[in-house]
Amino acid sequence: MIELKIVADNIRITNPVIEKAVREFNPDPIMEMALRCEAAGADCIDINTGPLGKEPERQMTFWVETVEAVTDLPLLIDTANPIAMDAGLRAAKKRPIINGFSLEPQKLDAILPLAHKYNTEIIGYLLYSNGHVPLNESDRLEVAASLLAHLEKNNIDKYRLIIDPVVPPVNWQDGHIQAQMILSVIRMLPEMVGFEVRTIAALSNLTAGKADIHKKKRLQAAYLPMLVASGLDMAMVDVFNAELVALAKASDALCSSHIFSWETI
Amino acid sequence: MIELKIVADNIRITNPVIEKAVREFNPDPIMEMALRCEAAGADCIDINTGPLGKEPERQMTFWVETVEAVTDLPLLIDTANPIAMDAGLRAAKKRPIINGFSLEPQKLDAILPLAHKYNTEIIGYLLYSNGHVPLNESDRLEVAASLLAHLEKNNIDKYRLIIDPVVPPVNWQDGHIQAQMILSVIRMLPEMVGFEVRTIAALSNLTAGKADIHKKKRLQAAYLPMLVASGLDMAMVDVFNAELVALAKASDALCSSHIFSWETI
Repeated sequence: MIELKIVADNIRITNPVIEKAVREFNPDPIMEMALRCEAAGADCIDINTGPLGKEPERQMTFWVETVEAVTDLPLLIDTANPIAMDAGLRAAKKRPIINGFSLEPQKLDAILPLAHKYNTEIIGYLLYSNGHVPLNESDRLEVAASLLAHLEKNNIDKYRLIIDPVVPPVNWQDGHIQAQMILSVIRMLPEMVGFEVRTIAALSNLTAGKADIHKKKRLQAAYLPMLVASGLDMAMVDVFNAELVALAKASDALCSSHIFSWETI
Repeated sequence: MIELKIVADNIRITNPVIEKAVREFNPDPIMEMALRCEAAGADCIDINTGPLGKEPERQMTFWVETVEAVTDLPLLIDTANPIAMDAGLRAAKKRPIINGFSLEPQKLDAILPLAHKYNTEIIGYLLYSNGHVPLNESDRLEVAASLLAHLEKNNIDKYRLIIDPVVPPVNWQDGHIQAQMILSVIRMLPEMVGFEVRTIAALSNLTAGKADIHKKKRLQAAYLPMLVASGLDMAMVDVFNAELVALAKASDALCSSHIFSWETI
């Protein structure tokens, strides 16, 4: 059992404030949010830029430089656009994490090699080559093995991989059953791949779609400790949900091999 | 995965209001609290009378009759005094659950046979015959096997047993490591004993001792979903902690094999 890292999912293009700031190359709202993420307890910050169709290099460079201007926290660069990804990795002062690749051919061809080029860690999604989600545990474990084979083929150290098992929305058919399977997959992965491969999960996926916000928070609060007890290494969450961040720290304290102290929670 | 039952731990002699009511044979505060437990979402009510040194039969009969006068919820009768236990089982209109026995000789001799006499379910604690807590998983599983052997010796059906693995306080030495082991034990028990033996855990034990109340609530909120994901069947909690009860229901909805619905949480 190791220490959970909390990844802020807040700096994302789907947030209208961020979208406007990026469109206008106005750094202030992005800087402010990055500082708030750090103050809220984030250990890393995900920069979810979307595809960046227009000026991908200039825009991504702006995102990365703006966030790095105010925080030393490690970044996850979260885009499917390889040109933007390359620009972000080039711009970053501190080595970021690539978020991410999968067995989809365009990801294998254009994203995965960047982990070798920039010597970074990379998140690998448990998705089929057609982008679909595997629907049982053994298929997910097979996909994990394929991701590792592709790392090897690209001369990337296996310890650079962080697996994202892809948390399903509960309002998918059998979504909560899939969410249970994700817990087993996280638990089984180290034994299956033969080393303590790290895992990351994006909690807000669980409650994607329409529902009461209090119920969404409650369901995330129920699932997060389950993920941590299963051995999750990185939880991507809305760090402005203070109670969820506190719960993550309490879950981590319970699952840690370190001495427990009330001071840490 | 089955539906979690929420057991109210609120009606207990350590609560001064209850203690006074019992001492004066005043039913009103007890009735009021039983009604509040039911309204708060309890599926069962634990009646923790303590040893009842004076007038054990009269007092226990009063407790049971008072609670049963206002609610049809099943009761857990929680005393180490076999005379009080016998009186409570005799007085109850609805078949209660005996809480509980262990390998301690006085429990085997005087409490366990009552499960046969009154044809009830019985909680078995994973404790050694000297009342000490086993400190690893395999010892706990051995104790579980011994409990089952004693049921058989007393001609009590094995499905009557509900195992309480005894949640440790985190402020014990290595308490949180023991709490992690409790999760594994709950997970492993069905396979170890060869059937879907039920389990119960008393959550407030985790945070026994001195600490900030908000931190205590947060730690309970972190541990409860872990217990549910491990397969816990009955959670004994302070049902007046509304957020914890809601979290229990959300955890159960996530871990259920039934269709998920936002309505249930």
